Amino acid sequence: MKAPDWFWKGLLNSYTQIFFSENKLFAAILIPVSFIDVYAGLFGLISVLFTNSVAFIFGLDPQKIQKGYYGFNSLLVGLGLGIQFEPVFILLFIVLLASILTLFISVTLEGVIGKYYLPHLSLPFVFALWMLMLSTREFDALNLNERWIYTLNDLYIIGGSSLVSVYEWWNQLAIPSPIKSYFLSLGAILFQFSVFSGVLLAVGLFIYSRIAFTLSLIGFFAAWAFYGLIGAEISEVGYSYIGFNFILTAIAVGGFFIIPNIYSYLWAIILVPLVAIIAISVNTVLSVFQLPVYALPFNIIVLVFLYVLKFRTGEQSRLFTWFVQRNSPEKNLYSFLNYRDRFYSYTRGSLKLPFFGDWKVTQGHNGAYTHKDDWSHAWDFEIEDEYGKTYQGSGDYPEDYYCYNKSVIAPADGTVEDVIDDVEDNVIGQKNLDENWGNTVVIKHSEFFYTKVSHLKKGSLKVKRGDRVRMGDILGVCGNSGNSPYPHLHFQVQETPYIGSKTLKHPLTNYYAGSGS
Amino acid sequence: MKAPDWFWKGLLNSYTQIFFSENKLFAAILIPVSFIDVYAGLFGLISVLFTNSVAFIFGLDPQKIQKGYYGFNSLLVGLGLGIQFEPVFILLFIVLLASILTLFISVTLEGVIGKYYLPHLSLPFVFALWMLMLSTREFDALNLNERWIYTLNDLYIIGGSSLVSVYEWWNQLAIPSPIKSYFLSLGAILFQFSVFSGVLLAVGLFIYSRIAFTLSLIGFFAAWAFYGLIGAEISEVGYSYIGFNFILTAIAVGGFFIIPNIYSYLWAIILVPLVAIIAISVNTVLSVFQLPVYALPFNIIVLVFLYVLKFRTGEQSRLFTWFVQRNSPEKNLYSFLNYRDRFYSYTRGSLKLPFFGDWKVTQGHNGAYTHKDDWSHAWDFEIEDEYGKTYQGSGDYPEDYYCYNKSVIAPADGTVEDVIDDVEDNVIGQKNLDENWGNTVVIKHSEFFYTKVSHLKKGSLKVKRGDRVRMGDILGVCGNSGNSPYPHLHFQVQETPYIGSKTLKHPLTNYYAGSGS
Amino acid sequence: MKAPDWFWKGLLNSYTQIFFSENKLFAAILIPVSFIDVYAGLFGLISVLFTNSVAFIFGLDPQKIQKGYYGFNSLLVGLGLGIQFEPVFILLFIVLLASILTLFISVTLEGVIGKYYLPHLSLPFVFALWMLMLSTREFDALNLNERWIYTLNDLYIIGGSSLVSVYEWWNQLAIPSPIKSYFLSLGAILFQFSVFSGVLLAVGLFIYSRIAFTLSLIGFFAAWAFYGLIGAEISEVGYSYIGFNFILTAIAVGGFFIIPNIYSYLWAIILVPLVAIIAISVNTVLSVFQLPVYALPFNIIVLVFLYVLKFRTGEQSRLFTWFVQRNSPEKNLYSFLNYRDRFYSYTRGSLKLPFFGDWKVTQGHNGAYTHKDDWSHAWDFEIEDEYGKTYQGSGDYPEDYYCYNKSVIAPADGTVEDVIDDVEDNVIGQKNLDENWGNTVVIKHSEFFYTKVSHLKKGSLKVKRGDRVRMGDILGVCGNSGNSPYPHLHFQVQETPYIGSKTLKHPLTNYYAGSGS
Repeated sequence: MKAPDWFWKGLLNSYTQIFFSENKLFAAILIPVSFIDVYAGLFGLISVLFTNSVAFIFGLDPQKIQKGYYGFNSLLVGLGLGIQFEPVFILLFIVLLASILTLFISVTLEGVIGKYYLPHLSLPFVFALWMLMLSTREFDALNLNERWIYTLNDLYIIGGSSLVSVYEWWNQLAIPSPIKSYFLSLGAILFQFSVFSGVLLAVGLFIYSRIAFTLSLIGFFAAWAFYGLIGAEISEVGYSYIGFNFILTAIAVGGFFIIPNIYSYLWAIILVPLVAIIAISVNTVLSVFQLPVYALPFNIIVLVFLYVLKFRTGEQSRLFTWFVQRNSPEKNLYSFLNYRDRFYSYTRGSLKLPFFGDWKVTQGHNGAYTHKDDWSHAWDFEIEDEYGKTYQGSGDYPEDYYCYNKSVIAPADGTVEDVIDDVEDNVIGQKNLDENWGNTVVIKHSEFFYTKVSHLKKGSLKVKRGDRVRMGDILGVCGNSGNSPYPHLHFQVQETPYIGSKTLKHPLTNYYAGSGS
Repeated sequence: MKAPDWFWKGLLNSYTQIFFSENKLFAAILIPVSFIDVYAGLFGLISVLFTNSVAFIFGLDPQKIQKGYYGFNSLLVGLGLGIQFEPVFILLFIVLLASILTLFISVTLEGVIGKYYLPHLSLPFVFALWMLMLSTREFDALNLNERWIYTLNDLYIIGGSSLVSVYEWWNQLAIPSPIKSYFLSLGAILFQFSVFSGVLLAVGLFIYSRIAFTLSLIGFFAAWAFYGLIGAEISEVGYSYIGFNFILTAIAVGGFFIIPNIYSYLWAIILVPLVAIIAISVNTVLSVFQLPVYALPFNIIVLVFLYVLKFRTGEQSRLFTWFVQRNSPEKNLYSFLNYRDRFYSYTRGSLKLPFFGDWKVTQGHNGAYTHKDDWSHAWDFEIEDEYGKTYQGSGDYPEDYYCYNKSVIAPADGTVEDVIDDVEDNVIGQKNLDENWGNTVVIKHSEFFYTKVSHLKKGSLKVKRGDRVRMGDILGVCGNSGNSPYPHLHFQVQETPYIGSKTLKHPLTNYYAGSGS
Repeated sequence: MKAPDWFWKGLLNSYTQIFFSENKLFAAILIPVSFIDVYAGLFGLISVLFTNSVAFIFGLDPQKIQKGYYGFNSLLVGLGLGIQFEPVFILLFIVLLASILTLFISVTLEGVIGKYYLPHLSLPFVFALWMLMLSTREFDALNLNERWIYTLNDLYIIGGSSLVSVYEWWNQLAIPSPIKSYFLSLGAILFQFSVFSGVLLAVGLFIYSRIAFTLSLIGFFAAWAFYGLIGAEISEVGYSYIGFNFILTAIAVGGFFIIPNIYSYLWAIILVPLVAIIAISVNTVLSVFQLPVYALPFNIIVLVFLYVLKFRTGEQSRLFTWFVQRNSPEKNLYSFLNYRDRFYSYTRGSLKLPFFGDWKVTQGHNGAYTHKDDWSHAWDFEIEDEYGKTYQGSGDYPEDYYCYNKSVIAPADGTVEDVIDDVEDNVIGQKNLDENWGNTVVIKHSEFFYTKVSHLKKGSLKVKRGDRVRMGDILGVCGNSGNSPYPHLHFQVQETPYIGSKTLKHPLTNYYAGSGS
């Protein structure tokens, strides 16, 4: 991965990830909106750039930096600090420290929550901003922001009187109170407390995903109805930054983490009152410390619900979780439907073993009882002679082994997704645990349907990334690279294109993994 | 499992599980007592029925629903809400939401705490009711219950003047203050705050288990003595619902989770002051938020103590934990003594291998270093020829394998506990991970002593559940079903009757598992 | 391990472990300093002795008791209670209960935090003392200590007027305020709030480690600078027991858990402001409950930082963590440099296989993909005949196996570190899971470079602990003891001298284990 990738894509995704998106057009709306309060926007941007850079220098996974997993929580903390305080120089110092703190909390929660195959969502933002709000009260060098009254001036400087009048027009618009609250709640996600910001965000959300937009309305107005029913103070939903919890929960459960269908929409509605109960009770506790709840209720309910889904026994029905996140409800839905049609037909016969002649299965997949194998199948193959031996002579050299140097072929038509070809072959008895899989080819046959052959001989690979292959095409020859003390061929079916990914490298992937382990 | 099982047994067990019991007679006392305040009882009952039904529809494990694991926490939440508020229609809506919330918290804690092989006890009740008490303060549609003063009227309606006079007689009885407090503490477990309720519960507890009853007295009066010694306000024990924490802790540690003996009683007494320290300190914190401690101290101390027990090195001595929970201190004790006598004699020679002639061990149990194997032994068997080969011909067909179609026999006398006979045999090289064990027979030889043979051939099984078998009786023939890429026989010794149960399916089972993993 | 070891070493280490040390000279300073307030020191000492004894009787690992892992948290709790209350008899009772509570919390956190390969530091002390401070408020039998004013009297009794004048001289010394605060902060670690105590501790720290002493200064004065910069109340650092958090964090990160170099010092400085942010925010929350923060900020930041380090992809650079803790920054540094030079040369050829002739690798290490193997290599060896068979005859007796009774030799020069020689050999097909490794020899070849051979025959071992061996020396013969259903030889390279240690037996060891699993 080239540096610009983690830098530029990481920057954009740190904005869109707030809405579970990687849509660049959406980013082009979110970034300007974050600058409606100029200094908030500025400190938000600084937070993203600094966090991603520290993460890269520190040696964290560039792929995650690029996805915006670390940046988006820091962005929210930066926005929150920027809107709260006057932009003195010392604030810059605090924002940089806050970025490091948020990054560390992100990584820690990724590790802890990731063990349960759950995403850490915006919990790092919540915890980090609480810490900062509690401590900065004691910092005499920081002064509370009083530029709320100057927003119009700022806007005038940026966009002239036309921008000011657009802004004013929206805020003073005689739209019904709940709709106004909806827009304010949307804007509050980026700490931009104006109807104008909310309208722009609604447009962006609509562009990114019609499903997500619909769900945002459903979530918000279900909450509105619930507050009316129980007689709670309705204005809180709109004005105390609680409202966006309902919006984000509905999007997450209704269409993002679950394949959107009638049942996902139903649960999105059922969960709204639970979010309200959490929000009100947490608010009662936090008010003692004069802290807002931020996005905590959304985080709690979504994490708990996703976790509970894993405890369903039997096959998934009604509520389906995805295997590979496509970062859009629409794409997830499409992939799911596509997958359901194609996956089974493929596994029912159209796959050939990746070699000519008779080899022998010498080992089932190690760790056959772990969750990973619920969806993958792996075998090790060797060639044996009539006496059951796998080599001639002393067996001290790779050449003694029957399978060594034998051709490895494509098990079905597809596209080469990934290739490793630079791992030295081992001497017999040695294992290379640092490069576990050795020389490897991953082929994509269809959505969610990949095969991988590993431990090939160095220098033998005939294909490169992007090549189209037909069933039976030669990929290379069997070798002894990677975690392979003697020549053999590892072959497996998988739903993702990653090579030997450890679970934590893809915390958002494949989190459906059987009952709670 | 038939629907009535999870429904009816789940209903009764949701009441008795509060006292770690599955005793139906006990349930017959608990349920009426929960209705002494009629509306509390009603909303408690509704909570149980709704929770268990949602759990079933959602696809959670029916066996756990039947055990009352999910229902009993919701019951407590329902009772707590029912006693707190006037029974308006909107309360029904809140109670249903509360049931879902409690269920979700139960499943989540089951997953998180279950990873440590610990039960979640009544923590879900504590967390859920806190959330609801904090949030319902803001619900104008709910009014506080004022029917304390009408209890006598209610009793009159139910049982006439005779019931009223019984109730009155007990409450006004000139019994010593600590004894009165003991009964009030017992009653408080079901949110029934009267001596009358407490007396009925004490009778029920006595019927269920004399050991548990004795421990309840020991726990309570040890606490009474400690409060006197340190000069803390003694009335708190009886009147602020803290008292039952001592009772439940003493029962849990003294006789339920640990085999009752002199040392378990000693620790039950030692832990009482620790429960008091936790109770008083947590109460100081929670009083800021006007929340009661409920059962938190009991939960903390019991979980910590059970967890610490696992870190003992060497063999268990003095304090013994059980392998299979029999849901009664007396039965646990009996099983333990029985087990100590029989288990070892069985494993010392009276067990035959489950086949005729010479087979070969081709694989020790996969994952031989995990805790599960501390108490189980598993082997895979195949037949090999003089060249070490396990098949003749190409090995591409099951029939090529020497062990295929060979008889599998009962390794000792016993009763067939479970049978799976409907799993298709695999073609060579395929594995069926969805039905891991394939066709399987589990035989019970004595308490805690079961054997299992797996991967049998479909259609070959000669036994059914409940059959008595003698050592050497033919059970079926070796096949290739389940997680079996080529024909072989899996044989293991186990202490529970379950087939390939994952740990989390039996969170209360076998939690003694070596040091802390 | 003999009883005196866990008792006497456990006593001393419970004092030095506070500073991550096992230095006896340091202990000789710490213990007297803890007695400057006589009763505090006394209750501290009682806590250590009682905690370690209970741990031993309970059956916890004597090695950990000896290291002071359990005792040091209880010591701090005992000191805290002793300084707070008048030394009435009932206080002794409370201190003993507090010791049990602290021990239980220590073990629990060891298990929970140990799962992440992190140490539990002084978190148990923090949690336990909070509980006790909150609850003892309600104990009328305890009175607050008023002997601050009598300290001089006490000193006079112990050391006469000369000791009093030394004490006075230091406290009234006209040293600059920050330096005075530094000494007060150091003294506060042992709840001895005087400049005199701090000076003595500084001397002890200097004797133990110059690196640690330097870091203590860096940490404290970086905090001083940060407080000045942000305009927070600087006196808090010195007087409210927050100051030592900076000192301990700097030592832990700068030199103890990380090999000291320029980057570790840099991070020690960067983390100081984060400790300050945590300290101030946590203090704001806790002041509602009138609780001090104690060592919480230090614990949070160090644990989070050590955890985040594990998520670095690729090889370690700049910041290096150790494999075996030597309990001194200097020794860690020396070992690290030594290791870097020797380890690689050894593994590149100078190691022979531990037998004569040709054996065959029949199994790679089970669990080859787990973190443990990132640093170890293990193989099982058998002898096969020309047909690939490992035995002649029926294979029902150990003597049938070719490898049985064959000599096992030292793979390189070294010293015998550990020997097990009393495990019975199994009959064929049985496994001894209670004594997994069977008869075993561990040889130390150099720092962090050990080899182990296992499953040897009982009665065949030719070496004993402490023997020097040369490459090729006979250690014993291949047998069938331990987790070995048929004769074979297990051989592995490891960095620690322990036999088959489970991870949790060495929670402070080898915590660098690849990305977060």
